[in-house]
Amino acid sequence: MLGRAYDSQTCSVASTLEVVGERWTLLVLRDAFLGVRRFDDFQRSLGVARNVLQSRLERLVEEGVLERRLYQERPARHEYRLTEKGIDLWPVLVALMNWGDRHAYSDGPPVVLEHRDCGGAVDDRRTCTRCGAPVDARSVRPRPGPGAAAEDLERHPVLRAG
Amino acid sequence: MLGRAYDSQTCSVASTLEVVGERWTLLVLRDAFLGVRRFDDFQRSLGVARNVLQSRLERLVEEGVLERRLYQERPARHEYRLTEKGIDLWPVLVALMNWGDRHAYSDGPPVVLEHRDCGGAVDDRRTCTRCGAPVDARSVRPRPGPGAAAEDLERHPVLRAG
Repeated sequence: MLGRAYDSQTCSVASTLEVVGERWTLLVLRDAFLGVRRFDDFQRSLGVARNVLQSRLERLVEEGVLERRLYQERPARHEYRLTEKGIDLWPVLVALMNWGDRHAYSDGPPVVLEHRDCGGAVDDRRTCTRCGAPVDARSVRPRPGPGAAAEDLERHPVLRAG
Repeated sequence: MLGRAYDSQTCSVASTLEVVGERWTLLVLRDAFLGVRRFDDFQRSLGVARNVLQSRLERLVEEGVLERRLYQERPARHEYRLTEKGIDLWPVLVALMNWGDRHAYSDGPPVVLEHRDCGGAVDDRRTCTRCGAPVDARSVRPRPGPGAAAEDLERHPVLRAG
């Protein structure tokens, strides 16, 4: 299995990549943090082949990072929600985002994180720059930044609503 | 080219994965942060095929994440060092490591980060838990943790010296 290539190493970075290092997996998680829950919405957002998406979602469910829940009975439909173990990956996404903001988007970040309580911006140590509170995935709201593209807002209900 | 699959997205996470999302790349960077600089040392540490390693190193040099420097003239030998842009990836590695520490190593982390100035432990917001200083890649020292394996210490001079 592809994901098991780093097994011989006693290393927390390698262990994490065993779970999230496959192609598309971190973007699936990004979307989950942006509020995407349904297969077709992930598929539309990512533009990835359905069988690849299915295998990524199944792996994340097996690893306890996502939970599969029935949201409609006839026909049976499931959605995918982050577990606590999945929510613990938020700092990884924030770190990837910050690096891209700094090195890829000279016109400003496509998405900015805003502290729900006070509306302050969140810095790269996940601290609110206005009130100084440490923030987590639940205490921030993603908002379109100056580098946001119209079609990405369209794909992400959370950003569109913002 | 494999790395260009996420091009259609205006997203800082996707942009970062364009650079570091290929298999092995993040482990190459982990080793670079642990002080590995030479091709043969990366190869020994990772156990990856030489052509794969070569392609990962070349890509990171092209992207300005690593710099290739001559360290010996006859025969010509090069080493790979992190640039500032590469050092900016440190929070990504720390976040991956913290998640693995929490979810993969119940006997304790293989590596712990220690603040050079005061010897304090570093928390998951990259802050020293003893003196409260924000830390960066240069102000910490990686040390073997309670979950360290002997063969990994052997592979990493920085950890062995600790």
